[in-house]
Amino acid sequence: MHAVSLVAFAFWQTDATGPINDGRQFLWTALSVGIAALLAAWLLAHSVLKADSGSAEMQTISNAIREGAEAFLRRQYKSISILAVVIAVLLYVGYSLSPRTAPYAINVVISFLVGAFCSGLSGFTGMYVSIRANIRTASAARSSLNKALQIALRGGAVTGLVVVALSLIGIGVLFILFGGLEDPRHVPYQLVGFGFGASLVALFAQLGGGIYTKAADVGADLVGKVEAGIPEDDPRNPAVIADLVGDNVGDCAGRGADLFESTAAENVGAMVLGAALYPVFGLKGILFPLVIHAINLIASAIGVIFVRCRENEADPMHALNKGFYVTSAIAFVGIAAAVYTMLQGRWWLLGCGAIGLATAFLFVYITEYYTETRYRPVQDIAKASATGPATNIIIGLAVGMETPALPVIVISAALLLSYYFGVRGLADADIPFYAKGIYGTAIATMGMLSCAAYILAMDTFGPITDNAGGIIEMSNQPHSIREKTDKLDAAGNTTKALTKGYAIGSASLAAFLLFSAYLEEIREIVIHKVGDAHGIMPANWTFTNINLASVPVFVGALIGAALTYLFSSLAIRAVGNAAETVIKEVRHQFKENPGIMAGTSKPDYARCVHIVTGAALKEMVLPGALAVITPIAVGVGFRLFNDTYAATVIVAVPTINGIPINLCGAEAVAALMMVGTISGVLLAMMMNNGGGAWDNAKKFIETGAYGGRGSEAHKAAVVGDTVGDPFKDTAGPSLHVLIKLLATITLVMAPLFV
Amino acid sequence: MHAVSLVAFAFWQTDATGPINDGRQFLWTALSVGIAALLAAWLLAHSVLKADSGSAEMQTISNAIREGAEAFLRRQYKSISILAVVIAVLLYVGYSLSPRTAPYAINVVISFLVGAFCSGLSGFTGMYVSIRANIRTASAARSSLNKALQIALRGGAVTGLVVVALSLIGIGVLFILFGGLEDPRHVPYQLVGFGFGASLVALFAQLGGGIYTKAADVGADLVGKVEAGIPEDDPRNPAVIADLVGDNVGDCAGRGADLFESTAAENVGAMVLGAALYPVFGLKGILFPLVIHAINLIASAIGVIFVRCRENEADPMHALNKGFYVTSAIAFVGIAAAVYTMLQGRWWLLGCGAIGLATAFLFVYITEYYTETRYRPVQDIAKASATGPATNIIIGLAVGMETPALPVIVISAALLLSYYFGVRGLADADIPFYAKGIYGTAIATMGMLSCAAYILAMDTFGPITDNAGGIIEMSNQPHSIREKTDKLDAAGNTTKALTKGYAIGSASLAAFLLFSAYLEEIREIVIHKVGDAHGIMPANWTFTNINLASVPVFVGALIGAALTYLFSSLAIRAVGNAAETVIKEVRHQFKENPGIMAGTSKPDYARCVHIVTGAALKEMVLPGALAVITPIAVGVGFRLFNDTYAATVIVAVPTINGIPINLCGAEAVAALMMVGTISGVLLAMMMNNGGGAWDNAKKFIETGAYGGRGSEAHKAAVVGDTVGDPFKDTAGPSLHVLIKLLATITLVMAPLFV
Repeated sequence: MHAVSLVAFAFWQTDATGPINDGRQFLWTALSVGIAALLAAWLLAHSVLKADSGSAEMQTISNAIREGAEAFLRRQYKSISILAVVIAVLLYVGYSLSPRTAPYAINVVISFLVGAFCSGLSGFTGMYVSIRANIRTASAARSSLNKALQIALRGGAVTGLVVVALSLIGIGVLFILFGGLEDPRHVPYQLVGFGFGASLVALFAQLGGGIYTKAADVGADLVGKVEAGIPEDDPRNPAVIADLVGDNVGDCAGRGADLFESTAAENVGAMVLGAALYPVFGLKGILFPLVIHAINLIASAIGVIFVRCRENEADPMHALNKGFYVTSAIAFVGIAAAVYTMLQGRWWLLGCGAIGLATAFLFVYITEYYTETRYRPVQDIAKASATGPATNIIIGLAVGMETPALPVIVISAALLLSYYFGVRGLADADIPFYAKGIYGTAIATMGMLSCAAYILAMDTFGPITDNAGGIIEMSNQPHSIREKTDKLDAAGNTTKALTKGYAIGSASLAAFLLFSAYLEEIREIVIHKVGDAHGIMPANWTFTNINLASVPVFVGALIGAALTYLFSSLAIRAVGNAAETVIKEVRHQFKENPGIMAGTSKPDYARCVHIVTGAALKEMVLPGALAVITPIAVGVGFRLFNDTYAATVIVAVPTINGIPINLCGAEAVAALMMVGTISGVLLAMMMNNGGGAWDNAKKFIETGAYGGRGSEAHKAAVVGDTVGDPFKDTAGPSLHVLIKLLATITLVMAPLFV
Repeated sequence: MHAVSLVAFAFWQTDATGPINDGRQFLWTALSVGIAALLAAWLLAHSVLKADSGSAEMQTISNAIREGAEAFLRRQYKSISILAVVIAVLLYVGYSLSPRTAPYAINVVISFLVGAFCSGLSGFTGMYVSIRANIRTASAARSSLNKALQIALRGGAVTGLVVVALSLIGIGVLFILFGGLEDPRHVPYQLVGFGFGASLVALFAQLGGGIYTKAADVGADLVGKVEAGIPEDDPRNPAVIADLVGDNVGDCAGRGADLFESTAAENVGAMVLGAALYPVFGLKGILFPLVIHAINLIASAIGVIFVRCRENEADPMHALNKGFYVTSAIAFVGIAAAVYTMLQGRWWLLGCGAIGLATAFLFVYITEYYTETRYRPVQDIAKASATGPATNIIIGLAVGMETPALPVIVISAALLLSYYFGVRGLADADIPFYAKGIYGTAIATMGMLSCAAYILAMDTFGPITDNAGGIIEMSNQPHSIREKTDKLDAAGNTTKALTKGYAIGSASLAAFLLFSAYLEEIREIVIHKVGDAHGIMPANWTFTNINLASVPVFVGALIGAALTYLFSSLAIRAVGNAAETVIKEVRHQFKENPGIMAGTSKPDYARCVHIVTGAALKEMVLPGALAVITPIAVGVGFRLFNDTYAATVIVAVPTINGIPINLCGAEAVAALMMVGTISGVLLAMMMNNGGGAWDNAKKFIETGAYGGRGSEAHKAAVVGDTVGDPFKDTAGPSLHVLIKLLATITLVMAPLFV
C-alpha cells in the first residue's frame, strides 16, 4: 500500500504547485495511481495466497472447485473470443464503408478489442483470486474470525482494484495512443469501442455465469434435497462441486465484468461530455473522470485496510460498513480536491459529486430494507409462507414490485438536483444550459462510482465466504467453525444484494450520461456528414430532441421496453433448460453407481461440471444475440422510414441538396435505449430485491420462526427461494449488463443510424 | 332486433341521398341506433329472463349469489359516489380558479358526473343480467347445450350493447347540450370530463371487484381445499357463495366499466382530434367515432344472433368465433360505408380501420397461443409442474415475460402503418403531417373497437357459465349435465382471456390517440392563456415535443413506469390482505359450528360475503388514490421547475411579458402517461397471460397429464394457478384501467399543468 500513498501524495503535490497548466500531469498521475493499484492488488493477492491453505481434505474440494471454474472460464472465453473477433471484423467493415468513418475504423476496432480483453482479464483475475481465497478463508476460520474476514475481503479487493485500474489504464493509454494529448476534443469518440468491448464481454460473462450458477444450484437442490433427501452441500451429490463452481463464475467473473463495464462506460461517456465542455475546462474536463477513478482506487484501498472485527463479533457487516464509510469519506475529500484543482473550484459541482455519493448510500439502505430479515418486507414473506408456497410467491412478487418506488424517487431527485447544481456551477460558462446540467449529472455519476472498487471488494467477498462455508461443510469440520463461516456467509449474502442495488443505481444514473453522449455523437456525425456533402446546417443545431409524440420514437420506446421482458424471459428459461440437464445427469449417476448414495464411492463431480458448462454456454447465445441485434436492427431499419413520420417540422433540420437528413433511426434507437433502460432498471430491481427477500425469508424461518426447518412454512419458503434464484442471480444482473450494452452499442453503431 | 335493422337501413338512406350536408343527420342516426340498441338489450334481457329458472335448490343458491353481488355493488357504489362528488367539487373549484377555464367548469363537472353515472350503470346492468342469466343457463344445460350457450351469450350481449350504447348516447347528448351543433370545434374539450368520470368509476369498480373476486377465491381455496380437504365449490365451505359472487362483481361489473371506459375515452379522444381536422371534414370528422360505435352496435347484435352450436359440439368456442367473424365482417362493411359518406371516400383511411380490425384478430390469436392448452407455453408449464411448484412458477413467469414480444410487434406495426395510411389518405389536406398521421392511428383504434360490443358479450359469457357450473355442482345435478356446463365453462375461460388481450391491445392503441388529444389540448390552453395575457405566440406553434433528453421529462417517464409497479404491488397485496380476513372467518365458522363440516348444518354464507365486501372496499382505496394523485402531483409539482431544466431552446416558446410559458409540468405528465402506458401494458400482458397459462396448465394436468388430479404435478400446478389468480383477475385488469385513467385524468387536469 505504500506505493499507493506515495503516488497519492505526488498527485496533490503536482497539482497544487505544478508549473504545467494544460492538465497533462493529471493523466500521468492517474495512470501512475492505476499502475500502483495493480501493484497493490498483486501484493494483496500475494498476502492472501501465502495464508494457510487448510487440510488435505479441504484442498481436494478446493482444487475440484478451482479446476471446474477454470475449465468453464476457458471454454467461455474461447466462445466469447470468437464472437469478439467476428464483431471486430464487422465493426471494421461497417466503419470502412463510409468515407467519413473510415479514418476511425482501425482505432474503434482497437479500442473495442482492448476493452473486451480488459473486461475478460478483470473477470479472470477476480475469479483467479477468489477460488484460491475461499480455502484460505475456510482455513483461517478455524483459528480466527477476523483473519477469515480479512482474507475474504482482501481477496475481494484484488478484484475491485484490478477492475477499476484496468479500466483507468486501458482508457488512459488508448487516449494517449490515439493522440488525445494533441487533439483532445475528438479522441473520446474513438474510445466508444472500449465501452462496447467491455459490455459485450460482460453480457456474455454475466449471462453464461449467471445461467451456470443457477442451473447448478437449482439442479443440485431439486435432485438432491427434494428427490434424494440429502442436505445442501452434501458430498454425495454429484452436482455439489458444480454448485460451488457456479458461485465463482457467476458472482465473481460475472459481476467483475459487470462493474468493469460500468466504470468503462461511465469513463468514456463522461469524457465525451467533457469534450463538449472543452471551451470551459480544456483538457482537464476530459481527464476529470480518470482522476476520479484514481481517487476511487486510493480511497478503496485505504477502506479495505481499515476493516477488522472482534472475534466475538455477531455481525461482520458492521466491520464491512465501517470500511465503506471510510472509503466514502476519503473519496469525498478527493473529489473536493479534484474539483478545486481541475474544475476551477466550482463548488456547486462538488455538490453534484456529493449527490452521487448520497445516492450510493441511499441505494444501499433501501436494498437493505427490502432484503434484510429484520424489516417488514422479508417478515411479510416469511409470514405468508405459513399458508403455503402460493402465498409465499404472491407476497414475494408484491414485495418485488414494490421495491422500485423508493429508488426511483432517489434517482429522480439525484438527476434533478445534480442537473440544477450543474447549471449553477457553470452559470458563467458560455455553453448551453443543457450541457451544463448534463455535466452535473455526469459528475453525480462519477461521485456514485467513486467508491466502486470498495463495493466490488465487498461483492466478491460474497462468493468467497459462500465457498468457504461449502468447503467447511464438505470437509466435516466442527460445528463451532461452521458457525463462524455462517456469519461470514450471511454477511456475504447481504453484500451481494447491496452491490446489486448499487450496480443498478449507478446504471440508471450512468444511462442518462451515456444517453447524452449518444446525442452528442449523433450531432457530431450529422455536422460532418452535412459538411462533407456541402449541405445546409441550421445555426446552433443540436440533436437533443427525442420526441415521444413521434410515432417511430414511441415504437422504439415500446420495443426497448419489450426487449427487457423477452431478454429476462430467455435468461430465466435458460436456467430451467440447463438445470434439466443437471438433473438428468445426477439421476443417471445415482442409477449407474448406487455406491454414491451409500457413501462408499465418490460421484463424478467433473462430469457434472462439464455438462453444466456446455449447457450454460449454449443457453447464453439466444438472449445475448437478441440484446446485440435488436438495437442495431431498429437503428438501421428505422432509417427506411421517410420524413412522413417526423412529428412536426418545428425545428430547422440539416439538409443535403434540399433533402432533410433522415434522423428516424437515430431517434428511435435513442428512445429504445432510454425506455429500455427505465423498464430494465425496474424489472431488475423487482427481480434482485424480490429474490433477495425470498432468500432471507427462508433463512429467517430456518432460525426457528413459523416452525423452523422442516415445517410446512419452510417448504413454502424453499419454493420462494428457488424461484428467486434465477431472478436475482441470472436475469436481474444480466439486465444490468443489457442496459449498459444498449448504451454502448448505440454509441459505437451511431454512424450506421444516420 | 327489427328496430336495429330498420335504423341501420335508415342510416344508409339518409346518408346517400340526404339533402342536408352539414352532417347533423349522422348524429341523429347514431343516437337512434344507440336507443335502438338499448331497446334490443331490453328485449334480449327479457328473453333471457323468461327462460326456465331451474329447481328450488338451484334457485336458493342463485338467490344467495344475487343478494351477495347486489349488496357488494350497493356498498361499492355508495363509496364511489361519495368519492365522485368530492372530485366533482374539486374539479369545479379547480376549473373556477382561472378566468380562462371558469366558463367550462360547469360543463366539465356535468360531463364528469354523467360519465361516472353511465359507467356505474353499465357495470350494474351487466351484473343485473348476469346474476340472473347464470341460473337460467344452468337450467337450460339440463336439456340443451345450444340453449345454454345462447342464454349465456345473450345475457352477455345485454352488457355489450348497454355499455356501448350508453357511451354513445352519453357523449352524443352532452355534445348537443353543450352546443356542439353550433360550435363543434370547442365542445369536444368539454367532454373530457366524461372520459375521466368513466375512468374513475372503472378504476374503483375493477379494483374493488378484482380484489373481492380473488380474495374470496384464494381464501375459499386455501381454507377449503388445502386445510379442510373439501373440493372446490363444496357447499360446506362458508366462502363458496362469496367466491361465486366474486365472479360477477369482478368480471361482469369490473370489465363492463373497463370497456365502457375504453369506448368513452376513445370516443372523446377521437372527437378532440376530429376537431383539429375540422378544416377537412367539418362536423362529420367529429361525429365519425360516434357513427363507428353505431355500426359496432348493429354488427355485434347481428353477430350474437348468428351464434348457435350442435348438441354434440366438442368446443363451443367454434360457435363463438363464428359470431366474432360475422361481427367483424359487418363492421368492416360499415366502416367502409362511413368512410365513403363521411370521410370523402378516402380509402386509405378505410385501410386504417382494417388495420385496427386486423390488430384485434392478431391480439386474440396471440392470447390464444399463450393461454390455450394445446400450444407450447401451457404445455411447458405443465411439464415443469412435474418437478414441483418452484419450476412451475419459474417457467410460468418466463412465459409471462415472453408474452409482450409479439403483441408489441403487432402494435408497433399497427401504429406505423396506420400513421402512414393516414398521411396518404389526407395527402391533399392543408393540415400538418402529424395531424394526418395521428388521425390515421385514431381510425385504427376505432376499427379495433368496432366489434367491442360483441367482445364484451363474449367476456360476460365467462362469469355466467362459470356461475352456471357452480350452481350445477352445488345442487348435485347428474354428471352428464356437469359435462355440458364444463364445456361452456372452458369456453368462458378462453373468452375471458381473449377479452383481456383485446382490452390491453385497444388500450395501447388508444393511448396514442389520447396522448395526442392531450398535446392538442395543452396547445389550445397555451394559445388562450397567451392570447388573454397579450403575450407573444410564435407562428404555427404546437405542443408536440415531449423530449426524453430533458431531465424532468425523463424523470416523469421514470415515475410513470414505477407507478405501474407500485400499483400492481398494492393490488396484489390487497388480495392477500382481504383473503386473510376470509380465511379467519371460515376457520371461525368451522370452529363455532362443527355441524358445517359434518353436513348437518348450513354455514353462514352471508357473513362471509359481508366480510369480503368490507375488506375489498377498504383495500381498493390505497392503489386507487395512488393512481389518481401521482399524475396530478407530477403535473402541478413540476411546474415549480423553472426553465433551467428545458433541454434546449431550439424551438421558439410562447411568452408572456417576455417570460416563456413554463411547460415543465405539462411535459413531465405527458412522459409519465406515455411511459407509464408502455410499462403498464407490458406488465398487464405478463400478468394476464402468465395467469391464464398457469390456470390452463392446471386444467391440462387435470385431464390426466403428468399423473392427473392429486399427483405432485397437480399440487404444483395448483400453486401456479393460485399465484396467477391475483395476476390475471386483479392486478392485470386494474392496470388496463390505470392506463386509461392516466390518459383521462391528464386530459381533464390539463389546465392545472400550464
